[in-house]
Amino acid sequence: MSTPTIHGIIGYTITPFTANGEGVDLDALGRSIDRLIDDGVHSIAPLGSTGEGAYLSDAEWDQVSEFSIKHVAKRVPTIVSVSDLTTAKAVRRARFAEAHGADVVMVLPTSYWKLSEAEILAHYRAIGDSIGVPIMLYNNPATSGTDMSVDLILRIVNAVDNVTMVKESTGDIQRMHQLQRLGEGQVPFYNGCNPLALEAFAAGAKGWCTAAPNLIAQLNLDLYEAVLANDLSKARELFYRQLPLLDFILKGGLPATIKAGLRATGLEVGDPRLPVFPLGEDGLGQLQTLLKALR
Amino acid sequence: MSTPTIHGIIGYTITPFTANGEGVDLDALGRSIDRLIDDGVHSIAPLGSTGEGAYLSDAEWDQVSEFSIKHVAKRVPTIVSVSDLTTAKAVRRARFAEAHGADVVMVLPTSYWKLSEAEILAHYRAIGDSIGVPIMLYNNPATSGTDMSVDLILRIVNAVDNVTMVKESTGDIQRMHQLQRLGEGQVPFYNGCNPLALEAFAAGAKGWCTAAPNLIAQLNLDLYEAVLANDLSKARELFYRQLPLLDFILKGGLPATIKAGLRATGLEVGDPRLPVFPLGEDGLGQLQTLLKALR
Amino acid sequence: MSTPTIHGIIGYTITPFTANGEGVDLDALGRSIDRLIDDGVHSIAPLGSTGEGAYLSDAEWDQVSEFSIKHVAKRVPTIVSVSDLTTAKAVRRARFAEAHGADVVMVLPTSYWKLSEAEILAHYRAIGDSIGVPIMLYNNPATSGTDMSVDLILRIVNAVDNVTMVKESTGDIQRMHQLQRLGEGQVPFYNGCNPLALEAFAAGAKGWCTAAPNLIAQLNLDLYEAVLANDLSKARELFYRQLPLLDFILKGGLPATIKAGLRATGLEVGDPRLPVFPLGEDGLGQLQTLLKALR
Amino acid sequence: MSTPTIHGIIGYTITPFTANGEGVDLDALGRSIDRLIDDGVHSIAPLGSTGEGAYLSDAEWDQVSEFSIKHVAKRVPTIVSVSDLTTAKAVRRARFAEAHGADVVMVLPTSYWKLSEAEILAHYRAIGDSIGVPIMLYNNPATSGTDMSVDLILRIVNAVDNVTMVKESTGDIQRMHQLQRLGEGQVPFYNGCNPLALEAFAAGAKGWCTAAPNLIAQLNLDLYEAVLANDLSKARELFYRQLPLLDFILKGGLPATIKAGLRATGLEVGDPRLPVFPLGEDGLGQLQTLLKALR
Repeated sequence: MSTPTIHGIIGYTITPFTANGEGVDLDALGRSIDRLIDDGVHSIAPLGSTGEGAYLSDAEWDQVSEFSIKHVAKRVPTIVSVSDLTTAKAVRRARFAEAHGADVVMVLPTSYWKLSEAEILAHYRAIGDSIGVPIMLYNNPATSGTDMSVDLILRIVNAVDNVTMVKESTGDIQRMHQLQRLGEGQVPFYNGCNPLALEAFAAGAKGWCTAAPNLIAQLNLDLYEAVLANDLSKARELFYRQLPLLDFILKGGLPATIKAGLRATGLEVGDPRLPVFPLGEDGLGQLQTLLKALR
Repeated sequence: MSTPTIHGIIGYTITPFTANGEGVDLDALGRSIDRLIDDGVHSIAPLGSTGEGAYLSDAEWDQVSEFSIKHVAKRVPTIVSVSDLTTAKAVRRARFAEAHGADVVMVLPTSYWKLSEAEILAHYRAIGDSIGVPIMLYNNPATSGTDMSVDLILRIVNAVDNVTMVKESTGDIQRMHQLQRLGEGQVPFYNGCNPLALEAFAAGAKGWCTAAPNLIAQLNLDLYEAVLANDLSKARELFYRQLPLLDFILKGGLPATIKAGLRATGLEVGDPRLPVFPLGEDGLGQLQTLLKALR
Repeated sequence: MSTPTIHGIIGYTITPFTANGEGVDLDALGRSIDRLIDDGVHSIAPLGSTGEGAYLSDAEWDQVSEFSIKHVAKRVPTIVSVSDLTTAKAVRRARFAEAHGADVVMVLPTSYWKLSEAEILAHYRAIGDSIGVPIMLYNNPATSGTDMSVDLILRIVNAVDNVTMVKESTGDIQRMHQLQRLGEGQVPFYNGCNPLALEAFAAGAKGWCTAAPNLIAQLNLDLYEAVLANDLSKARELFYRQLPLLDFILKGGLPATIKAGLRATGLEVGDPRLPVFPLGEDGLGQLQTLLKALR
Repeated sequence: MSTPTIHGIIGYTITPFTANGEGVDLDALGRSIDRLIDDGVHSIAPLGSTGEGAYLSDAEWDQVSEFSIKHVAKRVPTIVSVSDLTTAKAVRRARFAEAHGADVVMVLPTSYWKLSEAEILAHYRAIGDSIGVPIMLYNNPATSGTDMSVDLILRIVNAVDNVTMVKESTGDIQRMHQLQRLGEGQVPFYNGCNPLALEAFAAGAKGWCTAAPNLIAQLNLDLYEAVLANDLSKARELFYRQLPLLDFILKGGLPATIKAGLRATGLEVGDPRLPVFPLGEDGLGQLQTLLKALR
């Protein structure tokens, strides 16, 4: 298995819906992917939280997965989120993504019932055993309801060959310190918490998983470049410049704010599916002010 | 709309699976329902947490919903959990349940993205507007990720005509005090936290939503009867007698422990779906000891 | 060692201050004690949270302790809170209280640095070894910063002979269930959370440690009597009647609300010490409305 | 009022006790202060958490305060922690420290009763009004029980002239982002969470308040210098080198681990006061291994 080198800015795609949220608008999806790649992101990640993966039917999920991989067309690596509530369904999605050309799959242990560590490990093992591409393990208790300790994460990395990367989204920088120390620098980790971007890079994160490049790709990339150039002052300055927007999209919800932002910049991608509301008028005003200040 | 009087012991059904968790075993489901009704529960609640509703495909959900309602056949009221991630899908389920004869539907605001109060209210309103049967609003942040304050709950009760009952599963007795006080005794509430059964009744709960009657229906019913008879000493004694089992099924997970218990008493209902593990050997030993002590 | 039977309503005293909070007004303290005893409380507890014990100089603490014990004069048992930050100072206070006639001392493991279980046990052992009267162990993480698990509490009860009672103030009824079950009904527990009064008695609490009798002793006593009479309906009715006031004094802070209430009923006891504010005008209005409704 | 420029490494002193923790060993205190200054720290901070300020009698507090200020003798600025439970006592300590030559006083709103925002503000105002030296506001909910939001902190900074610096010890880097953004870069903030040292500097902290220089001053200083030199790679490398020790002293408790470390390096400063235990044998072994690895 040759792992692609995942690093830098990993851009999350939204899933555009047609009117009333009924169908998927593949044409708009293609344009949003092109925009991200043209703007320079280092990888594309479809069907994550931003992509409302949890809100799609199985048929829609397949459709978006297949289309996204084909449309990226290896211009950059594609990392497909294949999480699902049952192990059987997550395995099916992982195989589907691999079969259609995904470079990496991402797995969040979504759960209704609180999972034990043994259950989580078995879940990753079952998925790992059924595919050949690398897995990015994803920890995000706020959305999944399951918090994996660094000890458990490293046990999974050791036990399942193709779990080779970790996306950490607790927002707790100490988790990254532990990943670095206990993983002896051998387990690449990626930051999934936007307002932690500066410090995660300072702590050694290999990349930043973010939906922000849909709106401010250049600033995201500049921050990463400043870190690569070992220029802390510049990185700090760039980070504080984009922080108001990062805070805003986190607080307002990624699908609602990113979709509103794309619409504001001329790319119509519809609204989030209910019960999630589209961005309200006040929010829209704030978003436009924030975007304008960054131009 | 004539609301059936929901009170007492509301028994949750499991969803039996065939070997490897692949299909639904309707025959076993029918027998488990009969057992609960024969044992005297006051209502039957299919497709809740215990029923692994979240782990079923849409087709399976329809199948279990339709079969359960028909099989109960109005011997007692049927309360069908119709929660789903999108409003559109929850509405579809609610309509389906009503069309097939459900007396009440139960709605938990499951979410991936954290919902605002306005989004939650709109979700309940959309469901309420699309059916004629009463809705039992269900608050359970541990599984849904959304905690509804008592203020919000009462606003929903006031805003949506057919939201007429509240199931509270935070385990915080102060929520029930607030429901009683702020609802001026007019909003019937039901306890969904097994180890709070005694105190919830003391605080005025109209009923107890529980999977325990699959294993110890008589003790559950006796506790309710002691409360109705105003015999606190007897209620306390009955509660402490069953508390070890109640704690065990909560800690071990309802599908795993209830399914193991049913198997131990001669009713084969299969295992939970992975990633949820069936009860291990140690747990099984403890469960049998606990059940034996209660006979 | 003959342990007095502590049960029922344990009334906490405030510590009256002279103008500007500078000195202690012993005369007012005596009158407030008399009022509580005349109203029928089963024990008196000076220098607790309500008594602002933490805000007194050592000399003041001694003065209030000695005076209170003498003034109660064995009409009912006196339970003196002797908590202090260092073990040496807590031992000194415990000895002082015993020497002046305290029937029981109460010990909360106050801490600045988070204490380990071994440190907490050693603290109780050192105090227990230096006195002959019984100790009521007190768990209240909200004020002490230290949460003792039921396991730890029972280990202390077993290890230190004169730790014979437990006051539980987490507000989590499951702690009382565990005390009852794991203590096999042999460890008397007392409720320190006012809005849990009904359920704590339902769960088997031997008494209720509360400052409320300074304002509504009869209602507190009636609730206890209803429980003793096994009349759950009456207990529930009495509890909901006094709950608004119980919630109010918890939310407003015990020293501020109880002192304001005493003043409103003609007993001037001064204000709390800064930085704690006296009850503001709005609060005073609410308190008077609540008290009036209970007359 | 001329504010000294507080920056860089602010070294916290322990308070050495004589045998059995009975008295204060001023001679050892003097030597520990000299060592910190000789090693290059930019300020000295007596009587903080590390200095067991909360565990001293008033007379001892005065003694340590006066001695420390005199002994530092303006070689570097002295920042004296003057926190106390009542406003009156905190004012007294602040005046005492100023009168004896403290350059800055540090104030943590310690509390027994949960304080309202108005109470906290009044507490700072009362202290600020009674002295002429600058105040470093200190937020540390883990030890004080009071968490001040950034909004409240900035309100206090605006309302009280001599509150000019903020020490943030929640360990949440987002608080520093907010201080930077909402304070428009005009409110210098200092990091009090050892394992956040790298990221706090990355986020713009002016200094690091830490007891670590008692053991590894050079590494602490080197990290600060690397940040000043805009060398992120070097800062990261230096941080990860010292992180195991920083984690160890945080987890083991500052007084216990720092006192043990000083003893191990030839400076006898006694043990912490009970109930806090001295470092056990296992801990001592780990500490020596950690220190050896850093030499």
